[in-house]
Amino acid sequence: MTESLRWALDRAALIAPERTAVIDGDITYDYAELARRVGGLGGGLQSLGIGKGDVVGVLALNGHRHLDYWLGVPAIGAVLNDLNFRLSEDELAFIIDDCGTAALAVDDMHAGIGGRLRERCPTLTTLVHLGDGPAPAGFASHDELLGHTAATAVPLGAEDIGGVFYTGGTTGRPKGVLLSHRNLVANAKHALLAIRHTPEERYLHAGPMFHLADGSQTYAVTWIAGTHVFVPAFDADLVGRVIERERVTLLLIVPSMINMFVNHPGTAERDLSSLRLLLYGASPMPDQLQEAAMKLLPCDFSQLYGMTEAAPLLTQCSPEDHRRGATGEQPYAGRLRSAGAPVIGVQVEVHREDGTRAAQSEVGEIWARGPNIMTGYLNRPDETAAVLDDEGWYHSGDAAWADENGYIYIVDRLKDMIISGGENVYSAEVENVLYTHPDVLEAAVIGVPDDAWGERVHAVVVARPGAEPDVEDLIAHCRAKLGGFKVPRSVDFRDDALPKSGAGKILKRELRQPYWAGHDRGVN
Amino acid sequence: MTESLRWALDRAALIAPERTAVIDGDITYDYAELARRVGGLGGGLQSLGIGKGDVVGVLALNGHRHLDYWLGVPAIGAVLNDLNFRLSEDELAFIIDDCGTAALAVDDMHAGIGGRLRERCPTLTTLVHLGDGPAPAGFASHDELLGHTAATAVPLGAEDIGGVFYTGGTTGRPKGVLLSHRNLVANAKHALLAIRHTPEERYLHAGPMFHLADGSQTYAVTWIAGTHVFVPAFDADLVGRVIERERVTLLLIVPSMINMFVNHPGTAERDLSSLRLLLYGASPMPDQLQEAAMKLLPCDFSQLYGMTEAAPLLTQCSPEDHRRGATGEQPYAGRLRSAGAPVIGVQVEVHREDGTRAAQSEVGEIWARGPNIMTGYLNRPDETAAVLDDEGWYHSGDAAWADENGYIYIVDRLKDMIISGGENVYSAEVENVLYTHPDVLEAAVIGVPDDAWGERVHAVVVARPGAEPDVEDLIAHCRAKLGGFKVPRSVDFRDDALPKSGAGKILKRELRQPYWAGHDRGVN
Repeated sequence: MTESLRWALDRAALIAPERTAVIDGDITYDYAELARRVGGLGGGLQSLGIGKGDVVGVLALNGHRHLDYWLGVPAIGAVLNDLNFRLSEDELAFIIDDCGTAALAVDDMHAGIGGRLRERCPTLTTLVHLGDGPAPAGFASHDELLGHTAATAVPLGAEDIGGVFYTGGTTGRPKGVLLSHRNLVANAKHALLAIRHTPEERYLHAGPMFHLADGSQTYAVTWIAGTHVFVPAFDADLVGRVIERERVTLLLIVPSMINMFVNHPGTAERDLSSLRLLLYGASPMPDQLQEAAMKLLPCDFSQLYGMTEAAPLLTQCSPEDHRRGATGEQPYAGRLRSAGAPVIGVQVEVHREDGTRAAQSEVGEIWARGPNIMTGYLNRPDETAAVLDDEGWYHSGDAAWADENGYIYIVDRLKDMIISGGENVYSAEVENVLYTHPDVLEAAVIGVPDDAWGERVHAVVVARPGAEPDVEDLIAHCRAKLGGFKVPRSVDFRDDALPKSGAGKILKRELRQPYWAGHDRGVN
Repeated sequence: MTESLRWALDRAALIAPERTAVIDGDITYDYAELARRVGGLGGGLQSLGIGKGDVVGVLALNGHRHLDYWLGVPAIGAVLNDLNFRLSEDELAFIIDDCGTAALAVDDMHAGIGGRLRERCPTLTTLVHLGDGPAPAGFASHDELLGHTAATAVPLGAEDIGGVFYTGGTTGRPKGVLLSHRNLVANAKHALLAIRHTPEERYLHAGPMFHLADGSQTYAVTWIAGTHVFVPAFDADLVGRVIERERVTLLLIVPSMINMFVNHPGTAERDLSSLRLLLYGASPMPDQLQEAAMKLLPCDFSQLYGMTEAAPLLTQCSPEDHRRGATGEQPYAGRLRSAGAPVIGVQVEVHREDGTRAAQSEVGEIWARGPNIMTGYLNRPDETAAVLDDEGWYHSGDAAWADENGYIYIVDRLKDMIISGGENVYSAEVENVLYTHPDVLEAAVIGVPDDAWGERVHAVVVARPGAEPDVEDLIAHCRAKLGGFKVPRSVDFRDDALPKSGAGKILKRELRQPYWAGHDRGVN
């Protein structure tokens, strides 16, 4: 064995057994206790017949019991599958069948759907209840599993799979991304190098734990023996309260959450001085939000970009880029619109369709390689072969260009590209302009069918409270900043927030659906 | 390809092409220029017929041309062999024949021996001259090689060998340690995590570059795009001057060098305020030296422990251990006598002879595993099998015990152990006591033949200038602190410094030789 996820907790419990590992509401314990729990969970799962290669799912809000699975499942050679609880029952059943989940851990909120899934899914025989009260009939009790003697050691190789994580929530049918111990260990080290965690770190699990962006922090924080702080789910008021009370130092959320946090009236009243770094992902922040956030929050900012297939970290826009960019200093200010430059340990480049490397500023596809790149998609050799080439490059499907210093500017998911009158329109570029309008709270740009142009650029907009923008005004705003073919031809206003994935990405598929019904292009 | 040493310089030249890469006397250039040089060297070596798997040796003092080989040789799939210039010609010829070196780069000081080695060693056909003047007849010129167009890309896997480094300078015949790209990349990441280099780092190559302790820093500093500063070799006066002039932030030397540096009269006059961290290895510092060094040098201290077979880093005694330990606070103060605790990324444990893990405080053998552990010894399958087991553990041969937090206390190289009257005596323990005597500058304890006891404990001592300790006084000093069987029965005083390896380790073999001549135990 040359690399194992086990080593993270092993080291923390050895060098710092008395350091606080977990703070979850009134519950708190140290690394010695966390190691005891995780050992017990391993033994408990083994007593239920779970062994090497078996898939253990989790369907739960954030919390300390949830953490036991991230550490305990790979430690016995089993495979973690943390499920997005915003999926429908059909979608969940598809995933469970696809990866053959043997046991599923559910919290009280998901006990009902857990029971229904067991009835539907033939491989799923065991349910584990995560909760304070007694386990429902037919469920094993998580807290009782913890009472088992520590797991029997299982021989593990670096290539053994530690987790299977499903992607494609925003497009197509979900695919299971297989991540080995080596992949996840590499990502933990890359995250530690990029974020420079310290042993004094108090990391708040504020984004959903089922998302690998949070999971990537989970292993990093454990390895350096920092403290895990939990909220059940993102809530602007609760997050502020917990940061203040628990002296949280580190937070990873997406811009839509930052937006809610910054605009929440209580946030300004909080003592948030413990916060050293706010990490965000999924997209750059619109300028206005960035300005408001940097004014309100007394901490550094850093953007991370990646994807499940990369376990997930690829590039970073650093705290220094943000500090110096905020004053307008170039090239830092310009970089704040990028996804950042490659972190230590990975290669990230923009390539042309013919595989050659794109010139500086030329739009192409993001390719990445490194020890963090996935082993493949579960049971999908063709789709795996389509994205992993012989030289180890992963072809991401994201369209981007790179500047002279390797900073990657994402123009769109290739599949979100709008083709109008033979011209390529990258929706992110149009959205960025819409976000600069003072009345715009949220904006998404999609292609909708058009008899004349094939597709036409269409914007869906949520106005700021109290603002009443009109269509002509928004279009004029865009026309002032964009080539004519990129300007939205039509705008829809919505009263409610735009639909989002569990990771906070706007679900363009759902926005497109009504327009494309009856057309043959489909909505993906 | 999932991991490559190439990526370190690729990234630095991409994200920070204008940052200062090299300062060597009056010569300075940025990462764009370093990348151009290294690409040119690769192309130049290829033009000389060097290809994948060929060994390229270096026999030279520290300097900027020397750095080109650390980066350029693995980049074309060739294997770096950096030679200890303190070895004899016979020893160098043994190594060159053993690994089949094809080309050897030598500086002016080693041009003569380079020529002789080419005559002796059949595989060695090419000599490259590193120097300011014209190359001697029959030598290729390094500076001319740099003028070649960049190297042709060579397909590389993570398992391909990047370097072969010889160990055993202190014992037995040298063995070539094969380190793959994965091994060296892993160590670079572990070093970056342990030492927390910043892009503003200015690292002084003060210890010899042929030693992997320095080489390990080489890749780390390059990856984060810090600055390499050079002195040709350690010299207390020069090191102080260069730290002051070039605002050096980071230094890695051994205690004997720290001793010289601290005792050099000019050091106290220097402005050393740029220094943030002094790294030291090979052994803990004697208390007196530690106190003097921490008083004189306005920086953090950290001890690193490892070995060539681990590429080399295994454990660290952290800056915090030193800061808090210096005030006498426990457990930090106690830890300053240890080699530190496992760094992130590796497992380090003490095991019994039967392979089970030793109890806390029980002396056993240090075992280590991780992606940094060597691929094996070149052409020595039996010796490889003797130290690498099926579970990935490397059996180090160092005797140690671990405390409750995993801090490793080395009691001796197993082979340096003295067996006297059936009792095991660990020489390091006796030496530590001798060093607490105010008159002792250097001390080494060895076993010498004794008719009554098999071996007897013998000390070789260098007194501080002006001091005149006597044998009875030293023995009484030890008797007050050690069990009777550990106390030296005899003491030799030397006027000159004790003989040391290139890495600064005292060569006990040489000390033992006169005593063991004619005895069958041998001197190793």
